[in-house]
Amino acid sequence: MEGLKDLLKRVQNGDLEIKEALNELKTLPYKDIGHTKIDTHRKIRRGFPEAIFCENKTKKQILEILKQFPEETIIATRASQDIFDYVKKELNDVKYHKKANIIQVGEKLNKKGGKVSVVSGGTSDEEVAEECAVSAEIMGNEVKRMYDIGISGLHRLFSKLEDLRNSRVIVVVAGMEGALPGLVASLVSVPVVGVPTSVGYGTHLEGIAPLLTMLNSCVPGLSVMNIDNGYGAAYLASTINDLSSDKNE
Amino acid sequence: MEGLKDLLKRVQNGDLEIKEALNELKTLPYKDIGHTKIDTHRKIRRGFPEAIFCENKTKKQILEILKQFPEETIIATRASQDIFDYVKKELNDVKYHKKANIIQVGEKLNKKGGKVSVVSGGTSDEEVAEECAVSAEIMGNEVKRMYDIGISGLHRLFSKLEDLRNSRVIVVVAGMEGALPGLVASLVSVPVVGVPTSVGYGTHLEGIAPLLTMLNSCVPGLSVMNIDNGYGAAYLASTINDLSSDKNE
Amino acid sequence: MEGLKDLLKRVQNGDLEIKEALNELKTLPYKDIGHTKIDTHRKIRRGFPEAIFCENKTKKQILEILKQFPEETIIATRASQDIFDYVKKELNDVKYHKKANIIQVGEKLNKKGGKVSVVSGGTSDEEVAEECAVSAEIMGNEVKRMYDIGISGLHRLFSKLEDLRNSRVIVVVAGMEGALPGLVASLVSVPVVGVPTSVGYGTHLEGIAPLLTMLNSCVPGLSVMNIDNGYGAAYLASTINDLSSDKNE
Amino acid sequence: MEGLKDLLKRVQNGDLEIKEALNELKTLPYKDIGHTKIDTHRKIRRGFPEAIFCENKTKKQILEILKQFPEETIIATRASQDIFDYVKKELNDVKYHKKANIIQVGEKLNKKGGKVSVVSGGTSDEEVAEECAVSAEIMGNEVKRMYDIGISGLHRLFSKLEDLRNSRVIVVVAGMEGALPGLVASLVSVPVVGVPTSVGYGTHLEGIAPLLTMLNSCVPGLSVMNIDNGYGAAYLASTINDLSSDKNE
Amino acid sequence: MEGLKDLLKRVQNGDLEIKEALNELKTLPYKDIGHTKIDTHRKIRRGFPEAIFCENKTKKQILEILKQFPEETIIATRASQDIFDYVKKELNDVKYHKKANIIQVGEKLNKKGGKVSVVSGGTSDEEVAEECAVSAEIMGNEVKRMYDIGISGLHRLFSKLEDLRNSRVIVVVAGMEGALPGLVASLVSVPVVGVPTSVGYGTHLEGIAPLLTMLNSCVPGLSVMNIDNGYGAAYLASTINDLSSDKNE
Amino acid sequence: MEGLKDLLKRVQNGDLEIKEALNELKTLPYKDIGHTKIDTHRKIRRGFPEAIFCENKTKKQILEILKQFPEETIIATRASQDIFDYVKKELNDVKYHKKANIIQVGEKLNKKGGKVSVVSGGTSDEEVAEECAVSAEIMGNEVKRMYDIGISGLHRLFSKLEDLRNSRVIVVVAGMEGALPGLVASLVSVPVVGVPTSVGYGTHLEGIAPLLTMLNSCVPGLSVMNIDNGYGAAYLASTINDLSSDKNE
Amino acid sequence: MEGLKDLLKRVQNGDLEIKEALNELKTLPYKDIGHTKIDTHRKIRRGFPEAIFCENKTKKQILEILKQFPEETIIATRASQDIFDYVKKELNDVKYHKKANIIQVGEKLNKKGGKVSVVSGGTSDEEVAEECAVSAEIMGNEVKRMYDIGISGLHRLFSKLEDLRNSRVIVVVAGMEGALPGLVASLVSVPVVGVPTSVGYGTHLEGIAPLLTMLNSCVPGLSVMNIDNGYGAAYLASTINDLSSDKNE
Amino acid sequence: MEGLKDLLKRVQNGDLEIKEALNELKTLPYKDIGHTKIDTHRKIRRGFPEAIFCENKTKKQILEILKQFPEETIIATRASQDIFDYVKKELNDVKYHKKANIIQVGEKLNKKGGKVSVVSGGTSDEEVAEECAVSAEIMGNEVKRMYDIGISGLHRLFSKLEDLRNSRVIVVVAGMEGALPGLVASLVSVPVVGVPTSVGYGTHLEGIAPLLTMLNSCVPGLSVMNIDNGYGAAYLASTINDLSSDKNE
Repeated sequence: MEGLKDLLKRVQNGDLEIKEALNELKTLPYKDIGHTKIDTHRKIRRGFPEAIFCENKTKKQILEILKQFPEETIIATRASQDIFDYVKKELNDVKYHKKANIIQVGEKLNKKGGKVSVVSGGTSDEEVAEECAVSAEIMGNEVKRMYDIGISGLHRLFSKLEDLRNSRVIVVVAGMEGALPGLVASLVSVPVVGVPTSVGYGTHLEGIAPLLTMLNSCVPGLSVMNIDNGYGAAYLASTINDLSSDKNE
Repeated sequence: MEGLKDLLKRVQNGDLEIKEALNELKTLPYKDIGHTKIDTHRKIRRGFPEAIFCENKTKKQILEILKQFPEETIIATRASQDIFDYVKKELNDVKYHKKANIIQVGEKLNKKGGKVSVVSGGTSDEEVAEECAVSAEIMGNEVKRMYDIGISGLHRLFSKLEDLRNSRVIVVVAGMEGALPGLVASLVSVPVVGVPTSVGYGTHLEGIAPLLTMLNSCVPGLSVMNIDNGYGAAYLASTINDLSSDKNE
Repeated sequence: MEGLKDLLKRVQNGDLEIKEALNELKTLPYKDIGHTKIDTHRKIRRGFPEAIFCENKTKKQILEILKQFPEETIIATRASQDIFDYVKKELNDVKYHKKANIIQVGEKLNKKGGKVSVVSGGTSDEEVAEECAVSAEIMGNEVKRMYDIGISGLHRLFSKLEDLRNSRVIVVVAGMEGALPGLVASLVSVPVVGVPTSVGYGTHLEGIAPLLTMLNSCVPGLSVMNIDNGYGAAYLASTINDLSSDKNE
Repeated sequence: MEGLKDLLKRVQNGDLEIKEALNELKTLPYKDIGHTKIDTHRKIRRGFPEAIFCENKTKKQILEILKQFPEETIIATRASQDIFDYVKKELNDVKYHKKANIIQVGEKLNKKGGKVSVVSGGTSDEEVAEECAVSAEIMGNEVKRMYDIGISGLHRLFSKLEDLRNSRVIVVVAGMEGALPGLVASLVSVPVVGVPTSVGYGTHLEGIAPLLTMLNSCVPGLSVMNIDNGYGAAYLASTINDLSSDKNE
Repeated sequence: MEGLKDLLKRVQNGDLEIKEALNELKTLPYKDIGHTKIDTHRKIRRGFPEAIFCENKTKKQILEILKQFPEETIIATRASQDIFDYVKKELNDVKYHKKANIIQVGEKLNKKGGKVSVVSGGTSDEEVAEECAVSAEIMGNEVKRMYDIGISGLHRLFSKLEDLRNSRVIVVVAGMEGALPGLVASLVSVPVVGVPTSVGYGTHLEGIAPLLTMLNSCVPGLSVMNIDNGYGAAYLASTINDLSSDKNE
Repeated sequence: MEGLKDLLKRVQNGDLEIKEALNELKTLPYKDIGHTKIDTHRKIRRGFPEAIFCENKTKKQILEILKQFPEETIIATRASQDIFDYVKKELNDVKYHKKANIIQVGEKLNKKGGKVSVVSGGTSDEEVAEECAVSAEIMGNEVKRMYDIGISGLHRLFSKLEDLRNSRVIVVVAGMEGALPGLVASLVSVPVVGVPTSVGYGTHLEGIAPLLTMLNSCVPGLSVMNIDNGYGAAYLASTINDLSSDKNE
Repeated sequence: MEGLKDLLKRVQNGDLEIKEALNELKTLPYKDIGHTKIDTHRKIRRGFPEAIFCENKTKKQILEILKQFPEETIIATRASQDIFDYVKKELNDVKYHKKANIIQVGEKLNKKGGKVSVVSGGTSDEEVAEECAVSAEIMGNEVKRMYDIGISGLHRLFSKLEDLRNSRVIVVVAGMEGALPGLVASLVSVPVVGVPTSVGYGTHLEGIAPLLTMLNSCVPGLSVMNIDNGYGAAYLASTINDLSSDKNE
Repeated sequence: MEGLKDLLKRVQNGDLEIKEALNELKTLPYKDIGHTKIDTHRKIRRGFPEAIFCENKTKKQILEILKQFPEETIIATRASQDIFDYVKKELNDVKYHKKANIIQVGEKLNKKGGKVSVVSGGTSDEEVAEECAVSAEIMGNEVKRMYDIGISGLHRLFSKLEDLRNSRVIVVVAGMEGALPGLVASLVSVPVVGVPTSVGYGTHLEGIAPLLTMLNSCVPGLSVMNIDNGYGAAYLASTINDLSSDKNE
């Protein structure tokens, strides 16, 4: 931003011809201004600056990235105990959410808004559900967990109907045939986000089967995330939750 | 069979040496006996001798095959009005089930047994459901149709619960995400057969999506047929229905 | 609902024993009450009762369904001119949105709320974008169309940045490689819904390519609908838009 | 159930207005009544309450679930020796079926009915075949094993023909090209269930090849389970077997 | 060839230095010599010079190619009646094999050798089987057709066992689940070539299902051609048949 | 651009405070400047402004787009005779390249540079090859066509070796198994671009087979375009050809 | 066989009525006779009785199967050093072909016939090539190995042309893009069998890429085996080689 | 070459008849001459003789191949530290590029030419990017690395625009949704090569998702390499870079 101010001052002072100023400005849009503007925007938008996806990164790479944000809340997803043991030696205010495989650096954010419900179908889907729930909590949402209420026992789902209808937004995590999100969506009027998981075998195709189920739901308006992407669902839920509170301001 | 009898007679009369008889018999198993035995068996087992799948066959070929069974009930599936108009000129006692795309030659069979329920999710699945229902009726089963009770309106399904539980076997035909068979199976104790249909678009992949859903159902014991295979489901349902009546004899 | 009231009255009057009343109630949950309750709920939730997907349905079937909702707004998607010409003879207050392939029966709804932006990448994606935009308008949303601002000309996208950031929710319709939704999501803080289209050739796989692109976006929080599902995206956008206005009440 | 009774009593006593009673009842159907009703039904239907699929669950999770059913027969499938060693310390009446990878808690059930035949094509398919056979036995069925009678040696199959035809229902487990179930179905008149296995290489695609073979069988009525799903096939076979005995009562 | 002779003559006569001759020769291998040699070889090898695959070619293109071989036997596969009507006006000695979709120009070749058996599973596979049988006949082979002996009626196959075992090489054409080639291969000792056809529906995937079946056959030594490639199978069969007669010379 | 100049002038004149100027500039980068700059850049880069892909566009849409570039050379690919007949009525200087399915508006460009060779494997690949060749010619390249030199007759390829090695860049169009580009690449030292075509059947999977062949080539450095994308290959070839001439300036 | 002889004797002696004999014979075809006949046939056909595919089998299972054929040559494919070390303790006359991963029990067979050439594209394909070569040698064929003559260096292939043309049958093993078998087939007149290998990465899809290449070869008559199926190719080659020698007898 | 010279001398001396010389020459084209010619050509073309792909090769095999080129620069890709430790004992002038997994034997080449830019989207793509960058450097190119400038932060990309536009050729390595190469291509006028990486999860399908994205890019002229094929991209880039310098000579 300083570069731009200087340029304008030099024009104001007559130190810089308009033609030359124009030439300099032509290269600016993609550089200084753009940089500053988007960056500022990103911080506001996201609620917190960065989430690191640990798979395919070395412990050293992860630690280096975490250190770049010394005064902000930041999380690392798909983080093993081993990674946590490695990074905690060099970081302050860091904790590990074991079931969620999430490392949290800094405090969870505060925000007002409705409740995000995280629903899962079976015990095996819990890791993804927890990735979603913990992420959403760190982003400042109030989270209601409703686990193990899969389609094979419909009564378990119905007993939660009141809670579901009182949510602002619902994330439904499901492996196997992935029919749960559609079923939930057929019973409520709030936005529902489906997250297929890779839990299954054979024709499950590591999550392709429930993904297809969700994309083809005859219940309109169900939106879908990538397989096992609990963090992404939390992010979307948080964005939607932010929306409603914005309105109150 | 006559050939065998002759052979034995010749052995009995001393006209044939045992060694020579053995040589003749070595070639028999795959020929005369085998032929006769299996064939007889097939008629008993199937309830009626043959069903012709019309796709990829010419009208002339279809008519020729139908004529080979002059005194028996026989059906042709995936048959257009056009095919029916062609074959009815040369056949007696032939009728067309338009919605089911089935040509029926001869009378429907009679048999005692439980009720076969045919359930479908949406209006668009009706052709496959009718292929199943009509086939099952011609095979002699009492059929109960319950159409358009898909997952997007759960109350429609629940209002049929009594009927479903009173069936001997249930065929559930479903396109879109194909979650209905699993849902039905979670509510009843009789065998449930799922038939995915090719009705859908995009990631529906012409029926692959609901097929995967059914194969991955977390409700145990759901069995699945090929996409759009209403006839096959009717056949299986009929076989199961026969089973229970066998026991009474 | 009347059945239930009667039952209670008979209990109140002493005409019905509690034990018998319990027996009757046991069968109710899946029947009368359930039916009424969900149904009422559905009307409130959806904004309007039903949308008919015309593919794989006959003109006659479509007309019959449309006639079942004589006093309500209802739409038919993927409707050809031919279908419209057929149904308009027997329906009042019906109009055809040609580019969107939508038949509208009844007036569009009214509701307060933010703006739904519908973005598309290229001329060929317009049908799906229009299906989304028109559906959203009939559901009562204010819709802002921004068409033909694909990734091959980044400046077209940037020139709309202000509009995009002022939306409540953004639907991005894209064929070819489907990178546009992720790009938009990287520039705004409101929820973004991606709709892949079947427009492309070769390895496009009729929409699988852009679908995968959207599911794998490195921009967090992007949610995805089935290929060509403009109506579903409108439905979700409307649900999110409703959310924010709920809060104001 | 008690809640409902109380409510009715209060109506009977005049302590509760009908309007208020109606309001309370509106939330009931999906809660207390529904819960009880389905639950009771499930126990009757299944023969035993629950089967745990061990993959993707921790030893601790498995033990916790097993402990929830202290007085009932329950099984855990895909259970390693290691899991068994862990759970047996805290459970009574527990045994391990090693080839089948099944942990059994409690006694096997008793029921009358026909014979379930479990057929397998090769030595490598034995684990899945045993999962099916042992599950079916614990569910109370009489099981006849016929292993290693694959299609490459037709005489092995033919020598079992009598046994196959005397079964109530036949489960055929096959890897490689998966042609065996269709072949068996062409020779018998009882229901046949195919289970593709993941045993093969290259284009076998971990079981997709035999699955497709079974789905496309030209022998009508063959139904198919997910790849390696021996337990599901046992469950279906047991359901069919139950059917026939029901009739005798 | 003349070029080479000239070159050598010039060397012999002393008109060309060895160094210059070497330079000329360096460019020869990929040009004149190579051309001549391979070409000559091709004619001997193939039995006849060229087969034209008509799909994706215009009638005009097909006619032009056919005219390039005025004195030789040549065939056009996948040729419609329409193409034949077009080309027959300008060609002598041309006939159309309608069921096989083959145009034959010139006489069929003569050769000694064993019998090529062409087996097919169902009526719908006949076009591919005929493409194979007619091609093989034109290549000079004695062909034995055995159609409609599919796996659903095993006795039909067994009744042909003697004929099958007396063949030099067997081509088995099969759609649906494609189990027939493996079954045939399990019963004979001569080479078996499988040709999957695109006849089927749903998970048949236009021939992928039977292709996979054949590739995964547990009967060793079964070789496979592309889907519907009857001509290719005839070519291979002919090559194998040639082999055996070579030996006699 | 004028907007920017004005802004600077107002700063120069003292009519605009620096702070306010900064605010205005913050929104510029994605708007006016960006627009102008990229646009200018695009024209230089491309050689000509726009190519319209006609599939999924109406004749009217195509004409409208063509009219937007009144003074420039522009092409429309995948254009049928029917589209040409429609647009030629309203456009000057328009011609149709029938085999290439290309409409050309305006004159072909002039540029110096090496030769672009376009190689194709068979008669059926000619449409894609022509799309490439004609596009490249209109872009100003000298094009050398070498058609029908597929892998089944190696001598045809070798006879063109000199020509191939004298090219600046080679585009190889191939259907069927798609081995030709790798073979060509193994014989030359210039960049080779492979274009798989959708010409084939069965496991060809409409071009997936040759695409995979090219991507997996053991000859290093072969780059690949989408199936049937002759225009894209011409564009890349032209870019590479431009490169070399750039250097000379 | 003895059972049949007894039966005939009893008929001859008058100890058995013809009617009873017929009844007994009806069950025979699929049992004793069939058994004996096929079995005898199998031994003649195969050259040696059995090959064990070791994957998915335990060491104990493998040893047990090997022991069932005490006096015959038998091989185990995909056998690790570890398996060999286990079985060699209990078997005589056993050796390990390490590169081929084959355990051989008993002597290699003797037969007259032509030469089987085994060609491979690269060093990484050697395991599959050796599985083929060693298998073929044990089956009694003279084998000529030509390794590492892949398509990226065409001269290596051409230098072997004489050898290739003098083979009776050629097996070409190729990973990567799998173009080598088609290339070889274009240069020779003997049968060529392609074996795709799983060696590659990315879009190689563990062998699907070269498999598709081979199936789509524009060189007619190329036949294909499953991915990595060196043994199967050896078996087919041996069957073809047997054919030619048969003729001489 | 000596063979040919001898032959010509013998013709010159009259020791060899022209007819016999012709016979000898007929076998030459695919042997001696061909061999020599191509080989010489390969060395010139490639810049250096060979690159070894280490996957699926044993350490011993790798060492043996490396030793065959004692006086030339050669590289081994996908080489682990373990392989390097093994080979360095027996080789001189060998070094290990750890991040790139490349073993280099001999000095990097020298050549004049433009700059090759290697761009990557995220930290996890660095291995592939380094494989490309290091390979290109050893081939003698000047390489500019621009890592971690993925699509989720557009400003990072824009800040590098100048550098990108000053490159001769750009390689863009991207995992996740793979939109970066298309974005870069839309901003520059030099050739862009996309390399999808296998970094991702779920529907990423180990690189298929970004591959499809790149193939379907609406930005014309983007060419694509196999998944993770950094070496191949370097090779192509080097070929293009060589082109431009050729022109200067």
